[in-house]
Amino acid sequence: MATRKQLADAIRLLAVDAVQKANSGHPGMPMGMADIAESLWNHQLRHNPANPGWADRDRFVLSNGHGSMLLYALLHLTGYDLSIDDLKQFRQLHSKTPGHPEYGYAPGIETTTGPLGQGIANAVGMAIAEKVLAAEFNRPGFDIVNHHTYVFLGDGCMMEGISHEACSLAGTLGLNKLICFYDDNGISIDGEVEGWFTDDTPKRFESYGWKVIPNVDGHDFAALDAAIADAKQSDKPVLICCKTIIGQGSPNKAGTESCHGAPLGDAEIAATRANLGWEHEPFHVPHAVYQGWDAKARGAAQEARWNSLFSDYQQAHPELAKEFLRRMAGELPADWAAHAQSTIAAVDAKAETIATRKASQNAISAFAPKLPELLGGSADLAGSNLTLWSGAKGVAKENGGNYLYYGVREFGMAAIMNGLTLHGGVRPYGATFLMFSEYARNALRMAALMKINPIFVFTHDSIGLGEDGPTHQPVEQTATLRLIPNMDVWRPADAVESAVAWAMAIERNGGPSCLIFSRQNLPHVPRETSTLSNIRRGGYVLRESFKAQPDVVLIATGSEVELALKAQAELANQQIAARVVSMPSTFIFDQQDAEYRKAVLPVGTPRVAIEAGVTDYWRKYVGLEGGVVGIDTFGESAPAGALFKHFGLTVEHVVKTAQTVIGK
Amino acid sequence: MATRKQLADAIRLLAVDAVQKANSGHPGMPMGMADIAESLWNHQLRHNPANPGWADRDRFVLSNGHGSMLLYALLHLTGYDLSIDDLKQFRQLHSKTPGHPEYGYAPGIETTTGPLGQGIANAVGMAIAEKVLAAEFNRPGFDIVNHHTYVFLGDGCMMEGISHEACSLAGTLGLNKLICFYDDNGISIDGEVEGWFTDDTPKRFESYGWKVIPNVDGHDFAALDAAIADAKQSDKPVLICCKTIIGQGSPNKAGTESCHGAPLGDAEIAATRANLGWEHEPFHVPHAVYQGWDAKARGAAQEARWNSLFSDYQQAHPELAKEFLRRMAGELPADWAAHAQSTIAAVDAKAETIATRKASQNAISAFAPKLPELLGGSADLAGSNLTLWSGAKGVAKENGGNYLYYGVREFGMAAIMNGLTLHGGVRPYGATFLMFSEYARNALRMAALMKINPIFVFTHDSIGLGEDGPTHQPVEQTATLRLIPNMDVWRPADAVESAVAWAMAIERNGGPSCLIFSRQNLPHVPRETSTLSNIRRGGYVLRESFKAQPDVVLIATGSEVELALKAQAELANQQIAARVVSMPSTFIFDQQDAEYRKAVLPVGTPRVAIEAGVTDYWRKYVGLEGGVVGIDTFGESAPAGALFKHFGLTVEHVVKTAQTVIGK
Repeated sequence: MATRKQLADAIRLLAVDAVQKANSGHPGMPMGMADIAESLWNHQLRHNPANPGWADRDRFVLSNGHGSMLLYALLHLTGYDLSIDDLKQFRQLHSKTPGHPEYGYAPGIETTTGPLGQGIANAVGMAIAEKVLAAEFNRPGFDIVNHHTYVFLGDGCMMEGISHEACSLAGTLGLNKLICFYDDNGISIDGEVEGWFTDDTPKRFESYGWKVIPNVDGHDFAALDAAIADAKQSDKPVLICCKTIIGQGSPNKAGTESCHGAPLGDAEIAATRANLGWEHEPFHVPHAVYQGWDAKARGAAQEARWNSLFSDYQQAHPELAKEFLRRMAGELPADWAAHAQSTIAAVDAKAETIATRKASQNAISAFAPKLPELLGGSADLAGSNLTLWSGAKGVAKENGGNYLYYGVREFGMAAIMNGLTLHGGVRPYGATFLMFSEYARNALRMAALMKINPIFVFTHDSIGLGEDGPTHQPVEQTATLRLIPNMDVWRPADAVESAVAWAMAIERNGGPSCLIFSRQNLPHVPRETSTLSNIRRGGYVLRESFKAQPDVVLIATGSEVELALKAQAELANQQIAARVVSMPSTFIFDQQDAEYRKAVLPVGTPRVAIEAGVTDYWRKYVGLEGGVVGIDTFGESAPAGALFKHFGLTVEHVVKTAQTVIGK
Repeated sequence: MATRKQLADAIRLLAVDAVQKANSGHPGMPMGMADIAESLWNHQLRHNPANPGWADRDRFVLSNGHGSMLLYALLHLTGYDLSIDDLKQFRQLHSKTPGHPEYGYAPGIETTTGPLGQGIANAVGMAIAEKVLAAEFNRPGFDIVNHHTYVFLGDGCMMEGISHEACSLAGTLGLNKLICFYDDNGISIDGEVEGWFTDDTPKRFESYGWKVIPNVDGHDFAALDAAIADAKQSDKPVLICCKTIIGQGSPNKAGTESCHGAPLGDAEIAATRANLGWEHEPFHVPHAVYQGWDAKARGAAQEARWNSLFSDYQQAHPELAKEFLRRMAGELPADWAAHAQSTIAAVDAKAETIATRKASQNAISAFAPKLPELLGGSADLAGSNLTLWSGAKGVAKENGGNYLYYGVREFGMAAIMNGLTLHGGVRPYGATFLMFSEYARNALRMAALMKINPIFVFTHDSIGLGEDGPTHQPVEQTATLRLIPNMDVWRPADAVESAVAWAMAIERNGGPSCLIFSRQNLPHVPRETSTLSNIRRGGYVLRESFKAQPDVVLIATGSEVELALKAQAELANQQIAARVVSMPSTFIFDQQDAEYRKAVLPVGTPRVAIEAGVTDYWRKYVGLEGGVVGIDTFGESAPAGALFKHFGLTVEHVVKTAQTVIGK
């Protein structure tokens, strides 16, 4: 039988050899945390390698994602569908084992990590999901939602600001199923951290309301086992501070930054093998070690017990069980399509002139009762973002709910939303001002990269927010969000487009959506029924000109659609035939077939784009010869009306630009 | 003589009346912090209203910038060039008093604030500047650099992650001249913060190595005075926790979120006047109150004492004094232009094939000895970003220096760099991976908005970084940085362009620069002397085709210039005349006159752009009919060579695209 040290050493050597073979990667962290991993994965983690999708599995997040070989080694050794050949393909094209753990590439990867600090925030989201689902679905005798979320994190995560945001909120919400292992090795890329990182981390986490287990020897199995047992009794989130040696096992590089992010080299690897007494060839794992790690039988038994419990739950609470299965599968209710369509029709019939942020709230109010999975929230702007609705109930330490008061924590919010989505069973939407999408930007990107579908709500679009001035006026943010691959960005022109945008975001599977709403009122645009259905195509002919072949096409989004329509009328007075195209989602429009796109934007017809933001993006649609009416400077502080005039977002300017592009 | 309460009440009423007149704004914070402001500004702050540029003034940062009327009232009352009419123009177009304090709009505004958490980080930068300048310039008997940096901040700043990054580093560096007043009013926009913010903030700041003065009554002048006196004795940064009542003075709205971000309304204003015993009309300040606030005489005397000290310093240390004045004026050395030119010529002559990150380090090594104001740094990636040079000395608690080990704190770093720049006397450059420009993005924007010139260095450009994979491969970041108004973004193709980019960034006045460098080697491109000088025009003809009128123009940047040159040769084999344009800075190229731009990009000649990133941006240069060879998906983890092939960044693909756009 293999010893625990041998089991941990298997991780060390797999990491060392894979990094050496790839000639790049990070051996230091897997070597330093191997013993912790053995204690957690081999003795505590509730998981079934044969079914990585088991609803009530413990979640494991490697927030220090550069140590990916630790996770790959664990998945391989415990019995996931990740072969030794997959490990040999570490960091190669089309492999299951990329440089950082990528969600969807290998079974058992719960989230994509690497950008520091986001993994711990994802984990906070997972723990919140567990908490709210437990509150909603568990019944006496049926704790069908009852799992832990475990996190490994290092000094980098600790220094990142997002760790403050996420861990502070975790403390407030009392997420006691969240247990984190801090790899306190005193080394970051620049060397010994004492020159730039001198926090009293235990004290810091105590200030957040966490239970801290300090000074655990990260290479002492008994101490680790005891710490985890202690942690599982906590009524608060837990930080286990593990003193470790980076690169543990490497006789000459352990404890230094030289083993952090580069192969050890053949000589040092040989020395490491000798030092650890590991006599096996690269990528050879002895049978006894595989036996010692194999979690398939234990995992199958754990899941079987849960399946049995769930089966009884189905008997006792058939409707709840059905709903739970629907929710965890991420399926919309059967009558969703009809409900969405009737909601949109009702908004159209109502024909209200309202701010689209208000239209967004109306959409939430209409959709949320049908979709109990919606888990709303705002970064301390509920009353401005208008994300609350009558059925919203705030999550608190003492209770579940369907609304999160995230506090002023935009990045934390977005990364928590990613974690909520990855957990499953809930569908988060969360809001802030469009400007502060920038604080959250890399988490938005991570959602797009992971192909998951949280809904990001951004209000106070463009200069229309007025007096708060340039720090709050997003002129380039809409364009830059559109440049994130796989990000669907909607900038609706009225309440009807707002409702469609919400429906499209809810229906989206495979990527996130950004919904951009105005602070100011926007008029209702009357539409034919056929036109109404075209909103779902992202861009469409909103109002045809008086000729079938227009002289010019005016393309507008959001608050500028009104300008385009007025300019169309003014141009008609001058016998210039202008078509108005509303383009709330360029992402969706670009996915339409070429025939449709040409029908909307005829080849050769001059075009003018109108959007209260940077103009460069629109060259994609108007070309070099077209016109763009927009804003290429920062905004100013003034009432919105004065600003639109000041920045030339006027009917006169649109008309003049149209005249210029058609040479009149 | 006016009482201290009356002096504070003058702020309250000015804020209330200005917000009411503007019909928008934030009265609650100025009302809550008015007493603190009186204690600090009227009894401690060393400043001269007649000379807001006095080098050794205390710096004051309103990190909770939405309370801008507090600052405007203080500037007006103490004697800055900000009239009562300016206050009446609060939040109006072209006024000096926009919704948030904007640097450059009114005298005495040290930084633009509003985006929460960045003000405190700016202030950390200012305090670092004071520390390193003091270490460099002070001599026995001549503490010519010796001032405090004071900060007001609220719950919002405390919740933001950047406050963790900046304050943690401030503790490590022992910035004892930094004194912060925490407006602990228990209210944020969503209401009483206890539902989402339960940090033990004193304990948190103690964990950072700060001195914390807890439980100060923010409405008790004696307590405030004592706290500040205590703070000034500290050998650590200081947080004074002030218990305040938001909207203090408003009988019906004080202590609630209703007075945070909206006018009080006429009735409540009348009630507030009655409650405070303030009988004056809106915007009328009694003479005695003006007298009580007037800081002109005291400020003039303070500056005169410093001027006298500096005059003696000039006698004793003439060279140092001269250098100090140059540095504080932000002027380059007289021989800078010649030095830059000879450096660039030497790089050209050396003709090295190296990574541009290495070329960047060479440029730093060449320029830094001439520019002692350069204050380098990296967010824990010094060895990867290559930002260290032989003369770099790390700043620490015990000593000044010219290099900051920022730790894994990208957003904090960028906002600290803004503060360093605003202080003057130092010129920061700071680095991280290009991907993590996203963590810092809003601080980059703030630099552009403030028209200040820090230098942001971003290495590990595009898919060329290889195995670290999509989380680390910036495909859209270069394009999105270019969309920030007033941001100069350079993506150099070789060591020569890298040196020019550095020179241009150093010479820039009026905005920040982003310098984007490769991890992988890029070949030297031989150039004629005339071509060399054109690099400074942002885009230029790097290599002409075999015909004066080319069939196609290939536009490329960075690592793709090599591809363009190879494609040019291959196209020539096919009798297709391709011109190669290198476009390291679109920002600078766009500023050239139309004639030059047309000479580089002839109207009507088909164009192909080549950049390992999202393609939409390039439509601006190639139009609808041109071609773009780029990447519109996320990257993958693999060796760089395999990735360039996988994503079609190949000579063959460029050739084929060129053939297509010219119809062959």
